Amino acid sequence: MERVPAAPGTSPGPSALPSPALDLTLDAARLTARLVDVPSVSGGEKELADAIETALRALPHLRVDRHGNNVVARTALGRAERVVLAGHIDTVPIADNVPSRLVDGELWGCGTSDMKAGVAVQLRIAATVPAPNRDLTFVFYDNEEVEADRNGLGHLARDRPDWLAGDFAVLLEPSDGQVEGGCQGTLRVKLRTAGQRAHSARSWRGENAVHAAAPILARLAAYEPRRPVIDGLEFREGLNAVGITGGVAGNVIPDECTVTVNYRYAPDRTEAEALEHVREVFAHCPVDELVVDDSSGPAMPGLSHPAAAAFLAAVGGEARPKFGWTDVSRFSALGVPAVNYGPGDPNLAHRRDERVAAAAVLRCEERLRAWLTS
Amino acid sequence: MERVPAAPGTSPGPSALPSPALDLTLDAARLTARLVDVPSVSGGEKELADAIETALRALPHLRVDRHGNNVVARTALGRAERVVLAGHIDTVPIADNVPSRLVDGELWGCGTSDMKAGVAVQLRIAATVPAPNRDLTFVFYDNEEVEADRNGLGHLARDRPDWLAGDFAVLLEPSDGQVEGGCQGTLRVKLRTAGQRAHSARSWRGENAVHAAAPILARLAAYEPRRPVIDGLEFREGLNAVGITGGVAGNVIPDECTVTVNYRYAPDRTEAEALEHVREVFAHCPVDELVVDDSSGPAMPGLSHPAAAAFLAAVGGEARPKFGWTDVSRFSALGVPAVNYGPGDPNLAHRRDERVAAAAVLRCEERLRAWLTS
Repeated sequence: MERVPAAPGTSPGPSALPSPALDLTLDAARLTARLVDVPSVSGGEKELADAIETALRALPHLRVDRHGNNVVARTALGRAERVVLAGHIDTVPIADNVPSRLVDGELWGCGTSDMKAGVAVQLRIAATVPAPNRDLTFVFYDNEEVEADRNGLGHLARDRPDWLAGDFAVLLEPSDGQVEGGCQGTLRVKLRTAGQRAHSARSWRGENAVHAAAPILARLAAYEPRRPVIDGLEFREGLNAVGITGGVAGNVIPDECTVTVNYRYAPDRTEAEALEHVREVFAHCPVDELVVDDSSGPAMPGLSHPAAAAFLAAVGGEARPKFGWTDVSRFSALGVPAVNYGPGDPNLAHRRDERVAAAAVLRCEERLRAWLTS
Repeated sequence: MERVPAAPGTSPGPSALPSPALDLTLDAARLTARLVDVPSVSGGEKELADAIETALRALPHLRVDRHGNNVVARTALGRAERVVLAGHIDTVPIADNVPSRLVDGELWGCGTSDMKAGVAVQLRIAATVPAPNRDLTFVFYDNEEVEADRNGLGHLARDRPDWLAGDFAVLLEPSDGQVEGGCQGTLRVKLRTAGQRAHSARSWRGENAVHAAAPILARLAAYEPRRPVIDGLEFREGLNAVGITGGVAGNVIPDECTVTVNYRYAPDRTEAEALEHVREVFAHCPVDELVVDDSSGPAMPGLSHPAAAAFLAAVGGEARPKFGWTDVSRFSALGVPAVNYGPGDPNLAHRRDERVAAAAVLRCEERLRAWLTS
């Protein structure tokens, strides 16, 4: 899921019991249950990272590396292409929904959908496909559900970019078993108008900064967002005020008004181009100051790459664009096209009633195996 | 001065010393000093009200009434006209500026300008003009500097309106020795636009309430305020956003935006007409809700009344309109036209360096006496 503000920490303390070994001969649905039963709220991933590392080190066809609580395992078969399968191992805080429960074919519990089902699929592929048709890199990372600067994939990209090298990446975030290509970028700027304070009974002595924002809002209301087609996917942009604030007191002409604008843009634009576009949009408005509040680049879907085309053919369905920002952008920044593809339902993520259909987990495992062994 | 939000109370406790009698044979400047030296921060006016009541009761030509810490004294000479001279006896909190000090002809101290100099003039007229050419009513009231519902003049208007009856009223608020006629009304409304929340990455699923406010701001920016001439005074209206707020989070399409609008209007409109006008101004804007936040009616200057014309001729200078809202509006609501006319400089009110020129106080006293004895 997209990153969210840090939640009040409920990271479990060190377990008194020895960590149970992960049995990778279980099917992906059963393995999901085992993963859910090892709590790994953001910041408390060590026990689960240890278990994953131990299980992977038992597989002779993989080289295993670790950086903090991030574990990376790779084949080295000299194949023409390398594919990265990535997933975060942390969850949002537990909400009375651990241990997991299997009810009528659905596995309930914290992290079932987002995204221990995806992690289970990664582990099953690692264990059961010793001679894939493409070299494989498995990335298990921490702290995805909290502030961006704690994100384990970000730390790997910064400190060990070579571990993430590849021709194509699949992020197993919940996407309801559909391929979601790339992601849109997001830019947030604050547009400030300035005026002059005065008592509102003598308003002609001042200059109203809220009135000065009128053309900014008019421009936003009239804006026609692009819908560019990239790699066969129709993206859909948006330029919106997400906040406005101005005013000093009920009897004072405001000397300042700030409109916070969020531009969601398709991956054919860079972060710099997105900012340039926003500057152009408001070029004729009385903006006293434009400050960048937040900027995260987009990711190309990469569906024109042969590995991606084969992937799409193997997993079936119709690829769709990812409108929200996700960690695929970190791969894109490293030059690795990436898609989201995972068994969970994104609408159930972060909920007390989070769950995943066992059949969806098995189907995802089967489709990835078919792609990597055909 | 216009009413202000309640200040942290610094009302002095009961004095250990007996209240000094007020000597009304002192000139108005010296009497101002005595009044300043009896602290009377809003809520702590009892000692000063007692002293004023005692001094007035010693004058056989006046009937004296009291309601709380409000003191009203009246002649009953059967004159054709009755004039009300009114002033508040409270001050804002003391700021190391009591007792008063006379320096180079200026009297420094809390309340010198706002408005114990005016109160001193009232007392001097009460004491020295036993047979005025018009019947006189002297009103001394409390709690002007705090919330409107504590205002002593408001309490008198509600409980003892007959005590305030008259043909014309002079409020001795600081006006720099100039006649300020009537006052403008003030209406504050909140205009709310509504929308539909959505993730800003999928903005087409929502409806942006901040964008919906664009026509409201455009209407405000284009608005041409009236400048009607009433009783020879040119008033000057204003219609302004004094605040705007909207937004849920940096990645959410806002479902609500509120523009707070302040209409300052000339006294040829009633409160109801002012509201009707504001409704008309925004009739074609997508306003989901219009809520009245605050409304205080205007006051006619009353300068066409014979008593007022004689007043203007006697005190000289050119009358000017009062743009801000003042307590003259309370007289207007009772059918008594009223003006502001006092010796203090309004720009010095509420300041640590508050002061009044002794000569200005004496001049005000002289001019009122001339008007009432000619």
